[in-house]
Amino acid sequence: MKLVLHSAKRASAPYRVRIGLNLKGVPYEIRPVDLVANAHHAEDYRALNGQGLVPTLMVDGRPLTQSLAILEWLDETLPEPALLPTMPYERAIARGMAEIIACDIHPLNNLRVLRQLTAMDIGETERDAWVARWIGDGFRALEPMVAQHAGAFAFGDAPGLVDCLLVPQVFNANRFKVDLSPFPAIATAAARAARHPAIAAAHPDHQPER
Amino acid sequence: MKLVLHSAKRASAPYRVRIGLNLKGVPYEIRPVDLVANAHHAEDYRALNGQGLVPTLMVDGRPLTQSLAILEWLDETLPEPALLPTMPYERAIARGMAEIIACDIHPLNNLRVLRQLTAMDIGETERDAWVARWIGDGFRALEPMVAQHAGAFAFGDAPGLVDCLLVPQVFNANRFKVDLSPFPAIATAAARAARHPAIAAAHPDHQPER
Repeated sequence: MKLVLHSAKRASAPYRVRIGLNLKGVPYEIRPVDLVANAHHAEDYRALNGQGLVPTLMVDGRPLTQSLAILEWLDETLPEPALLPTMPYERAIARGMAEIIACDIHPLNNLRVLRQLTAMDIGETERDAWVARWIGDGFRALEPMVAQHAGAFAFGDAPGLVDCLLVPQVFNANRFKVDLSPFPAIATAAARAARHPAIAAAHPDHQPER
Repeated sequence: MKLVLHSAKRASAPYRVRIGLNLKGVPYEIRPVDLVANAHHAEDYRALNGQGLVPTLMVDGRPLTQSLAILEWLDETLPEPALLPTMPYERAIARGMAEIIACDIHPLNNLRVLRQLTAMDIGETERDAWVARWIGDGFRALEPMVAQHAGAFAFGDAPGLVDCLLVPQVFNANRFKVDLSPFPAIATAAARAARHPAIAAAHPDHQPER
C-alpha cells in the first residue's frame, strides 16, 4: 500500500494525520502544500480535495480527505497499535473528546476563516480574541475530560486519537499565545504526548518544508 | 438499554442523532433543551455536556456528547441496519462526506457563532453572507461526491451516516434561504432521504416541543 500525504507543516489537520501515521509506524511520503502561496487552491490539488483543504491522503493513488475520517480509516486498516479504546462507550468518549477539537475549536480558527474575518474588516486584536474564545470554550469542556481519562496519554496509557488532535491544537493555541494556565490537565497531557518519538517526528519543526 | 436524548428541534446536531436513532429503530426518550431560553447553559445541563451544546445522549444514565461520536457509537452498538458501508475505503469516503458538514460547515454557522458575530457588530446581512459562504464552500466540494456515490440515498442505496448529516444541513440552508440550485445532487438526495419514514419522524416539525 503506497501512502502519500499532502501536508502543510503548521496546519493542524495534516499534523494530526502525521501523528496517526507515525504511531502506526507505516511508511508514507510527504508532499508539501504551500498554503501561503495558495497551492491548496490550485486546480490539480482541488481535483484531489474539492474543499481545497489539507490534508489529502493518497492511498494507492486514490484520495481520502478529512483528518478524522483518515484516522478512522488508518485504525480500521492497520489495527495495531490501536488509536481508539476497545469498548464502544469508551470509544465514544474518546471520539467525543477528539471532536470537541475537530468540530468546535479548529474549524473556527483555520486560515480560511481568519482570512474571511480580515475581509470583513475585523482587526488583528479582535481576530486573536476570536481564536481565544473558541479555544477557551472547547478547552473548558475538554479539561475535566482529560483530567478524568488521561493516564500516560490524553486517554488512557497509550497514545491514540485524542493525542492526534490535542497535540496540534495545543501547538496552535501556543502560536496564538492563548493562556493555557486554566487548563493544566490539557497542557500536561499535550506536553507529555509531544515527547513520544512518533508524535515528536510529526512536529512542524521536523517537516521537510522550509 | 435506556436512551434519553437531550435535543433541540431545529438544531442540526440533535437532528442528526434523531435520524440515526430512528434508522436503528431503537426506542428513546426526548428531553427538549430550550436554546432560546439558554437552558443549554444551565448548570445541571453543563454537568452532562461541558460544552453546553446539544445533543447529549444519556446511555443508562451516562452522557455521550458530539453527534458524530454518538452516531459511531450507535453503529457499533446496534450494527443493523448499518449507517456506514462495509469496506474501509468506502467508510472513509462516507465519513469524509459527513465531516465536510460536521467540521467545516455547521460549526461555523451555529447559534453561538452567530451570537458572537452579533456581539462584534456584524449585521444581519453580513451574518447571512457568512452562513452562505461556508455552506457554499462545503457544498461545492460535497456536490460531486454525492453525484458520484448517491444511489437511492446520499451514499449508496440505503440510508446512513451521510443522510444523518445532509438532511439537517439542507434544512438549515433552507432556513437561511441559501440558493441550492448549484447543488442539484445534494438537493435531490436530501429531498429523497427526507421522505424516508425514520428520517421524516426526526424532522423539527415532528418534535414534542412547541
